[in-house]
Amino acid sequence: MIRTSGRQFNEMRPMEIIPNFNKHAEGSCLVKCGDTHVICTATVEDRVPTWMRNSGKGWVTAEYGMIPRATGTRVDREAKKGQSGRTEEIQRLIGRSLRAVVDLKALGEMCIKIDCDVIQADGGTRTASINGGYVALYLALKKLYDNKVLFKMPLLDSVSAISCGICEGTALLDLEYVEDSSAETDSNFVITGNGGIVEIQSTAEGKPFTPAQFEELYQLAVKGTAEIAEIQRKALGL
Amino acid sequence: MIRTSGRQFNEMRPMEIIPNFNKHAEGSCLVKCGDTHVICTATVEDRVPTWMRNSGKGWVTAEYGMIPRATGTRVDREAKKGQSGRTEEIQRLIGRSLRAVVDLKALGEMCIKIDCDVIQADGGTRTASINGGYVALYLALKKLYDNKVLFKMPLLDSVSAISCGICEGTALLDLEYVEDSSAETDSNFVITGNGGIVEIQSTAEGKPFTPAQFEELYQLAVKGTAEIAEIQRKALGL
Amino acid sequence: MIRTSGRQFNEMRPMEIIPNFNKHAEGSCLVKCGDTHVICTATVEDRVPTWMRNSGKGWVTAEYGMIPRATGTRVDREAKKGQSGRTEEIQRLIGRSLRAVVDLKALGEMCIKIDCDVIQADGGTRTASINGGYVALYLALKKLYDNKVLFKMPLLDSVSAISCGICEGTALLDLEYVEDSSAETDSNFVITGNGGIVEIQSTAEGKPFTPAQFEELYQLAVKGTAEIAEIQRKALGL
Amino acid sequence: MIRTSGRQFNEMRPMEIIPNFNKHAEGSCLVKCGDTHVICTATVEDRVPTWMRNSGKGWVTAEYGMIPRATGTRVDREAKKGQSGRTEEIQRLIGRSLRAVVDLKALGEMCIKIDCDVIQADGGTRTASINGGYVALYLALKKLYDNKVLFKMPLLDSVSAISCGICEGTALLDLEYVEDSSAETDSNFVITGNGGIVEIQSTAEGKPFTPAQFEELYQLAVKGTAEIAEIQRKALGL
Amino acid sequence: MIRTSGRQFNEMRPMEIIPNFNKHAEGSCLVKCGDTHVICTATVEDRVPTWMRNSGKGWVTAEYGMIPRATGTRVDREAKKGQSGRTEEIQRLIGRSLRAVVDLKALGEMCIKIDCDVIQADGGTRTASINGGYVALYLALKKLYDNKVLFKMPLLDSVSAISCGICEGTALLDLEYVEDSSAETDSNFVITGNGGIVEIQSTAEGKPFTPAQFEELYQLAVKGTAEIAEIQRKALGL
Amino acid sequence: MIRTSGRQFNEMRPMEIIPNFNKHAEGSCLVKCGDTHVICTATVEDRVPTWMRNSGKGWVTAEYGMIPRATGTRVDREAKKGQSGRTEEIQRLIGRSLRAVVDLKALGEMCIKIDCDVIQADGGTRTASINGGYVALYLALKKLYDNKVLFKMPLLDSVSAISCGICEGTALLDLEYVEDSSAETDSNFVITGNGGIVEIQSTAEGKPFTPAQFEELYQLAVKGTAEIAEIQRKALGL
Repeated sequence: MIRTSGRQFNEMRPMEIIPNFNKHAEGSCLVKCGDTHVICTATVEDRVPTWMRNSGKGWVTAEYGMIPRATGTRVDREAKKGQSGRTEEIQRLIGRSLRAVVDLKALGEMCIKIDCDVIQADGGTRTASINGGYVALYLALKKLYDNKVLFKMPLLDSVSAISCGICEGTALLDLEYVEDSSAETDSNFVITGNGGIVEIQSTAEGKPFTPAQFEELYQLAVKGTAEIAEIQRKALGL
Repeated sequence: MIRTSGRQFNEMRPMEIIPNFNKHAEGSCLVKCGDTHVICTATVEDRVPTWMRNSGKGWVTAEYGMIPRATGTRVDREAKKGQSGRTEEIQRLIGRSLRAVVDLKALGEMCIKIDCDVIQADGGTRTASINGGYVALYLALKKLYDNKVLFKMPLLDSVSAISCGICEGTALLDLEYVEDSSAETDSNFVITGNGGIVEIQSTAEGKPFTPAQFEELYQLAVKGTAEIAEIQRKALGL
Repeated sequence: MIRTSGRQFNEMRPMEIIPNFNKHAEGSCLVKCGDTHVICTATVEDRVPTWMRNSGKGWVTAEYGMIPRATGTRVDREAKKGQSGRTEEIQRLIGRSLRAVVDLKALGEMCIKIDCDVIQADGGTRTASINGGYVALYLALKKLYDNKVLFKMPLLDSVSAISCGICEGTALLDLEYVEDSSAETDSNFVITGNGGIVEIQSTAEGKPFTPAQFEELYQLAVKGTAEIAEIQRKALGL
Repeated sequence: MIRTSGRQFNEMRPMEIIPNFNKHAEGSCLVKCGDTHVICTATVEDRVPTWMRNSGKGWVTAEYGMIPRATGTRVDREAKKGQSGRTEEIQRLIGRSLRAVVDLKALGEMCIKIDCDVIQADGGTRTASINGGYVALYLALKKLYDNKVLFKMPLLDSVSAISCGICEGTALLDLEYVEDSSAETDSNFVITGNGGIVEIQSTAEGKPFTPAQFEELYQLAVKGTAEIAEIQRKALGL
Repeated sequence: MIRTSGRQFNEMRPMEIIPNFNKHAEGSCLVKCGDTHVICTATVEDRVPTWMRNSGKGWVTAEYGMIPRATGTRVDREAKKGQSGRTEEIQRLIGRSLRAVVDLKALGEMCIKIDCDVIQADGGTRTASINGGYVALYLALKKLYDNKVLFKMPLLDSVSAISCGICEGTALLDLEYVEDSSAETDSNFVITGNGGIVEIQSTAEGKPFTPAQFEELYQLAVKGTAEIAEIQRKALGL
Repeated sequence: MIRTSGRQFNEMRPMEIIPNFNKHAEGSCLVKCGDTHVICTATVEDRVPTWMRNSGKGWVTAEYGMIPRATGTRVDREAKKGQSGRTEEIQRLIGRSLRAVVDLKALGEMCIKIDCDVIQADGGTRTASINGGYVALYLALKKLYDNKVLFKMPLLDSVSAISCGICEGTALLDLEYVEDSSAETDSNFVITGNGGIVEIQSTAEGKPFTPAQFEELYQLAVKGTAEIAEIQRKALGL
């Protein structure tokens, strides 16, 4: 099977992270995974949601959006029709993935809101959002640390995410839109710098997949997330 | 680790499926997994959603709800506040899982709507919905087949679902509510009668899990879904 | 006129009340009036609505819902489209009817929420909800009394409800769906154990009715509610 | 018991109906019942709701609204918060009441929409809406008849409505706001010119009422609706 | 160009303001500009919006609505479909225009809510609302002053508004509906008694207008608002 | 008065337009006015809104949005709370401004949707949206023309927009956020390449302005829009 982009089955798209993309936000970046471009900002709020008050712990949450013409066919603005279930599902995934590497106790009663706004989409927007969201989060925490609001960085590990899928029976890394829309199985993996697994979502579209196929997908994801972790480190100057 | 229910780590709760529970629906059952009770109905509609017209294929979709006092603490009625993202996520999971075993071409341009209404909850409501949804779907298709609307049963396989999780480091099968709410990792597996995998969702709540732990969860799920498939068969008199 | 069920004009459908149907609720029952089945739960909340704070009085309120395939033709889920005016009208009727027999001062600043969820419908769902709602309410109050939260039962009377109607010129007791949908006049009566009237709703669908016809309907309702009061007492073990 | 207005227990407030109040509507009036003022307009539409297409029958429907400062305390605009269940209940009552005197077959496939907008409220807004709505409806039908769109007036009877209630044990006709808000029982009667009953709604607020009390309320309503029918006739020049 | 009404290009429609039109409101009037009729009420609230608390300043805000058959063709009730952007834009304009002549500090921490409800429309409803809104506001403030809640009238000036437009190349004052709907340019001017400008909104519908044409429109507006200020003064007995 | 940016009273911020910023849209650009950055895309649809069908004319419409952290303080996502009246007002302004230079008949029955998404805000987002929206619109029309879908460019003129305001009594061109939020008068002008006026919005925040002050604002706007027209031409390679 030859990929339209000419990539190898286990080859990621070129990925670039431009830190400090936004003038106002406490942390921000523009993440580009091929033609998928996402603006990620981190906003620090000096209070946690009501249900967490007086817990001594902080919170990290995420929101996700897409401008209407991010995609090949224009999609209606969610501001007009309300957020879809898909959007809410993605938001929860991003938030959960980032919280997995944050020491919420060390953060203290603050809330970091990560906004991921897709300005151009070509597959893999949720994983790009996690990758860029981590960078924006790191930068906001670093600012709090540099300003002595925090006395240590409340991060336990880094976190990266990648999609994989099975197309015409072949396991492929980092699906772009044309591959994603014809894949028999579609997966997202969220894996930490130390190799811990935060999330596995693996879904058959139509035909079920075998345990052996799942193993192939997992190995691709391990390779991909390791590469992404390196790109995140560089963007952060670490 | 001793489970509050006295169950073994790899032991499911008692499960019962009462077919034809509803007078009006084309297919229906009441599924009981321990104290989790779900009414599943299948409604046959003679037309498919607009975007599928003239495709020659049918559709299977699902909706999910919970009566307000299904849970220990009353939750506000979704009719008042709108469906949550969690509800929509569950609905899509149920629909996807059932479609994976249906030959949509053989079904023809009809739509089967599966309604899963939880009347009492104690963990595992989404997997119970898939298990009961399959039975309701089977009964509705059987009726169409018996009435010669369909000339063969458009089912490719059976499908069953189970939750597993890691509590205090131990992998457990079929979490009830108290286990689920303290689990470090929470997983749902949807597996067909022939062992094909339809869906894996595995999520760390806080601490990441290891590849070895994931393997344990998967093996428990294989055991559990095989037992459920047997209970489904009996309920259907097969 | 011969009723499809073979019942006499003044004969109710078989009615059954199964108390303590729900594991979590403070009071609950499943009420069956023929093929109309309603789960009623009572939830005790330790505070009253804002506008009643510091009044020294309690409150009883009700919510009503129907699972989509409770009826012959599936109805869209209210969680998707919002509560209809009909639903709100029924909820207010149930709440008002139950409050008429509660001593709100003796209850003190607590709120009892009655949820009535129809799992199968065949006419008379609002009156069944009142009948079952009273049983759930009684059980919740009894629990508060047994636990010495209340020092007397804050109930002034029992309350029962029944529908009557005029079909082809004949007054009939306890309409089932086929009768209800062809009735010229449709009425609901809510009457207490002592014969006090809490609510009369009598509506001509098309042709007005005469004072004499109204008298017939009222007499049927007096008979029916007396029989229901007896069934409620038995279900409560009184 | 002395009424604040000095009225006898069986005395209505002064009532005035100004026909053709609105420049644009096919039929309209301003109805004043004491300090309750309602603008009623009838709009003729050349099509019926979807579910009535090709039935050969017409439809009459009503909508109800109140300007925010119609009442002593300003109420929030429904355009901002959505229509309440109370509003929908009133709308259905008005529509049902008017349809009871219309020969929908003779009307043919047209829809008459009655809008009742309360510009000042002092109790009895729903009954005033029915009384004025009938006049607006008559005028719109007359115009269709005069223009030879209809070949006979599709009216079977006239219809009038009045509220009654029990205050401090006494049955009173035509409650104004201060009476209504302290009434033990609140009733609305809709009665045709020939004495047919279209609707009885009788509700105890707290203490149940007796059959004898209900009889008193009914007799007051018979007297009141007869007087209103006369005022409607005069306004229409009949 | 001859106007359908026979008016001169610089001639306003007959305008009448009936003060104290509403029984309940602290200030009110019915304003009639030709066939455009608007009920304006002022409601005094003893608190300001949350974001103004403890500022020592008051607030004036406005809401706008239209009964469905105010217009030639019935428009759907906003209570059913929500407020349109046009309605919100008009509300903000009315509020802003009135605040421009109020000394908010002298008002103190109170809020005056102006409701403008159009009961018949024939063009110029937003400017009529400002003109009537000013009268209702004045009356409410006068009442507070007479009751010694305020120790001086917190008004800096009067305010009036008028529409102008260009039809077939001619600048016209005070457009009625048929003129407004065919105008090439549509303008609204809000001008104080002392000639200060509060708002200019001038919009080409299709073809742009020239600076010279704009000057003509402005001169018409100066003439019109001066005439309106006189009518407002008379209605207030000044 | 010295501007924080060091600009002269009649000096615009540096402005840059990057055409073809988006991979998918028929026309697009990123417009930067100082720190205000807006992505504008044009989507061509092969049909017009229902109310324009069979008119032989096309339509141009606009939507506007802002990512949550475009501003100094994060604003809630409109997808969660619905579009504000302010957003709808801006959308209508952009659409109206662009339609003023389009020959809708020459466009034929097609609809061009302009999406303006603010990714960073520092005042003047609505005028930046018009300026960028014109470029995106031009590029989309050019593509239709190059592809021979259109046989001439259906543009009558170019269009540009700029804000002006009065701060501490001085008229200033092109307000940035700190200036805008303290301005006594805030204006937006939309002017065509040939000097035709499409829109004037001039609003006093508190203190009214004089005719002479308005003239100053207008002259600034004439200068500013001429400069912008030049930048638009360059970006389009004209």
